[in-house]
Amino acid sequence: MAADEREDALLTHADAPVAEAEVVRAPEGGESDSLDKENRLKPDFVRRVREALDQGESERAYDLVEPLHPADIADLFELLDPSDRPLLASAITDLMSADVIAEMNDHVRELLVEDLPAEDIAEIAEQLDTDDAVAMLEDLDEEDQQAVLAEMEPEDRAAIESALSFPEESAGRLMSRDFVAVPEHMTVGDLTDYLRKSRELPTEFWEVFIVDARHHPVGTCLLSWILRAPRSVALVDVMKRDQTLIPVGMDQEEVALRFQKYALISAAVVDESGRLVGQITVDDVVHIIQEEAGEDALLLSGAGDGDINEPLPQTIRTRMWWLFINLGTAILASSVVALFEGTITRLVTLAVLMPIVTGMGGNAATQTMTVTVRALATNQLTSSNTWRMIVREWWIATANGWGLGALMAIACQLIYHDWWLSFVLLLAMILNSLNAGLSGVLIPMGLNRLKIDPAVTSTVFVTTMTDTLGFFFFLGLADLFRLSA
Amino acid sequence: MAADEREDALLTHADAPVAEAEVVRAPEGGESDSLDKENRLKPDFVRRVREALDQGESERAYDLVEPLHPADIADLFELLDPSDRPLLASAITDLMSADVIAEMNDHVRELLVEDLPAEDIAEIAEQLDTDDAVAMLEDLDEEDQQAVLAEMEPEDRAAIESALSFPEESAGRLMSRDFVAVPEHMTVGDLTDYLRKSRELPTEFWEVFIVDARHHPVGTCLLSWILRAPRSVALVDVMKRDQTLIPVGMDQEEVALRFQKYALISAAVVDESGRLVGQITVDDVVHIIQEEAGEDALLLSGAGDGDINEPLPQTIRTRMWWLFINLGTAILASSVVALFEGTITRLVTLAVLMPIVTGMGGNAATQTMTVTVRALATNQLTSSNTWRMIVREWWIATANGWGLGALMAIACQLIYHDWWLSFVLLLAMILNSLNAGLSGVLIPMGLNRLKIDPAVTSTVFVTTMTDTLGFFFFLGLADLFRLSA
Repeated sequence: MAADEREDALLTHADAPVAEAEVVRAPEGGESDSLDKENRLKPDFVRRVREALDQGESERAYDLVEPLHPADIADLFELLDPSDRPLLASAITDLMSADVIAEMNDHVRELLVEDLPAEDIAEIAEQLDTDDAVAMLEDLDEEDQQAVLAEMEPEDRAAIESALSFPEESAGRLMSRDFVAVPEHMTVGDLTDYLRKSRELPTEFWEVFIVDARHHPVGTCLLSWILRAPRSVALVDVMKRDQTLIPVGMDQEEVALRFQKYALISAAVVDESGRLVGQITVDDVVHIIQEEAGEDALLLSGAGDGDINEPLPQTIRTRMWWLFINLGTAILASSVVALFEGTITRLVTLAVLMPIVTGMGGNAATQTMTVTVRALATNQLTSSNTWRMIVREWWIATANGWGLGALMAIACQLIYHDWWLSFVLLLAMILNSLNAGLSGVLIPMGLNRLKIDPAVTSTVFVTTMTDTLGFFFFLGLADLFRLSA
Repeated sequence: MAADEREDALLTHADAPVAEAEVVRAPEGGESDSLDKENRLKPDFVRRVREALDQGESERAYDLVEPLHPADIADLFELLDPSDRPLLASAITDLMSADVIAEMNDHVRELLVEDLPAEDIAEIAEQLDTDDAVAMLEDLDEEDQQAVLAEMEPEDRAAIESALSFPEESAGRLMSRDFVAVPEHMTVGDLTDYLRKSRELPTEFWEVFIVDARHHPVGTCLLSWILRAPRSVALVDVMKRDQTLIPVGMDQEEVALRFQKYALISAAVVDESGRLVGQITVDDVVHIIQEEAGEDALLLSGAGDGDINEPLPQTIRTRMWWLFINLGTAILASSVVALFEGTITRLVTLAVLMPIVTGMGGNAATQTMTVTVRALATNQLTSSNTWRMIVREWWIATANGWGLGALMAIACQLIYHDWWLSFVLLLAMILNSLNAGLSGVLIPMGLNRLKIDPAVTSTVFVTTMTDTLGFFFFLGLADLFRLSA
């Protein structure tokens, strides 16, 4: 299969006119018919495709889409209205390559795939790399999944079933089972001959794994070394022995961190007994790195996975649930205000100034919390520098509290000519700044130690601290100093 | 140079005992002496290094650090207190390889490098890839930079000066000038012989660029294709013509998006006239993808680049400036409250409930804003689906406003037995939810259209909208309906 595919690939490349490359992806960062300078599909282009589809002119749509790269076709599906997507799919059936499906947004693919009969899904899945096929099938419900698997060739089915047996988001699901592994006794010449002759190899690979008799990886050779070494050299003399092995059960976030840390292009995946079972390449990891890094912002804001293609009811459910929880913290904070109703009645200016104390606390806490969550996610913050981090945030909070507190106290004095009120405001802002800084660093670290994802849960606790204590500091101090008397 | 380096590399790999790989990076995800299960340096290990350094036992420190991977040595520097870092550097001078320097956090490296004499920096820079050398030198002040460049070999200096002539964060700074390019008339056999014989090639490369007489790239060959093709085949028949060319002036974020979109391992960089001038490989892009994706959370929170190794005064300046601006929005909001002092005096319950209206608005707006900022950053949101996005957020806001507004109105009625107050609360929450949803989506999109980074500026405007209008809706409606009469 791999060899045939390869011949096709060669023919395709050789046939493509040179000019096409320049049209599809203009080298000078210039614009093409379909892509703007930032490499996004032009609105005008999308509009023309949409019009062609709506007017039933499939051929015109086909001609428009045909020159696009699979990744751009996938983007086009996302940009179209959900109702236009099946129209496009049926207009361009023979352009709907495995690459297009693999590049497509999960939600968009799910909606499209749901409408297809099991045979068609099976046919697409057989063309995909195992990891992409798994990504497509794992979202189907159990019954549909079985129906699709039943339609597949036994060999492909076995690969997918084996991948599905690993937990979601693990290396086992991510890895490809197509890799090149050779025994340790080979020379560079043996290997080159083997690569030329074997018809069962993947088309694209970056390194060759050298395995012992038990199929345990003992080293790895980059192709550039093999190409440059004399034929007579033994592989064990060129290979790099020190390699990063990925256990099959490792979480994909962990895999991504290792690829990043050790600047890997590909890595061997081993099972519990240390046998080589697959490989992961960096192109499969890049979108995980992007997702994992970007999801902190979304999780901290309670926007779930924040995908703009997610079905609306699901999005509303996620977001409303978050707001509902946060309403609880708001009620808690407002019940603190209720405690001091009498104090406010006597000096209503307190109601005017109190949002400033909680607002500044909330903003300062968000800064600290976000930094802490990112530092934990990127493994920059460990037990070794915890204490340094806390001290650091303490100083930042002190500086902010005094600096901004003094500023507001002066402004307050100028407007209200009330020394005590200004003093209370200063004190409340200093206290709430320290509260914000320490909550912002200690709450995510504590949650992380309890194995709770700090990105998901920190905001609620931190906001509760700054709002509730913010009101309490300001109104409580005012009451204590009998400002309103 | 490349060839000598390569021989060294081979010797090193061949000499390393097999067992070492298993110690350094345990395959089963198990622990080693120095690394925990999540591949972070163990606190106990860091403590032992710190103790050795503090007690002046450089040799013990050396023995501890010696088995570590360069990336882990770089991490170790970050985890140590700033005062211990120069001690470690002098204890392990011959382990301080270019790789360690390249992997190091910018701030940590800057502090370390500042203390070194120009000759030493020049010597390190000469060992580094151009892009890493540039990263090290670009932070030095003009004078020190010149001093270092003066100490370097003319060839290396020219490469770095040429890189520094490109704008910061552009492809020109990121690219490596070591790549393999061959003329189009070659066969696979010619190329293989050339690769074997040439001594001036980089040690690691993933593809060979084929160029025409003007040095314009016309195609690219993956090494795996070359290894598998018969010697007699012409390169132009195996090469892929359709390739992604990166203009030398392209912003690194844009470069990262292309690598991601087209799943690239390496790509050719071309100058204004289309000549091949360098290549960018995915390992240089991975940390940009991670940074760019992660920075949205930090920018939205006003935490600057959020690096925990940034010098404290700089961090305080960034964070306080942000809080200062936000204090302005808080003052604006509180001046709205001041407008209604009379109303609040008559019904102090308004002061109790008003934080709930603004709190919910703020949280809802943050969700929408974060989703919008991410979608813009990842090119998911373009003019083609703007309208769909706005309608989507409108529905979400409507659902949230009615759902949570009704909930709070019922709670308010149960506690305060005041139909009008409950009705005002419901209305204010619905209005502020719509305000939040629309501000959250329109403000980042508007800023983006004005070429202002929405991640940096959205929060201030969005918060102003939800706080100011939130108070205004609630207190204004209360006044309108004369609740307090």
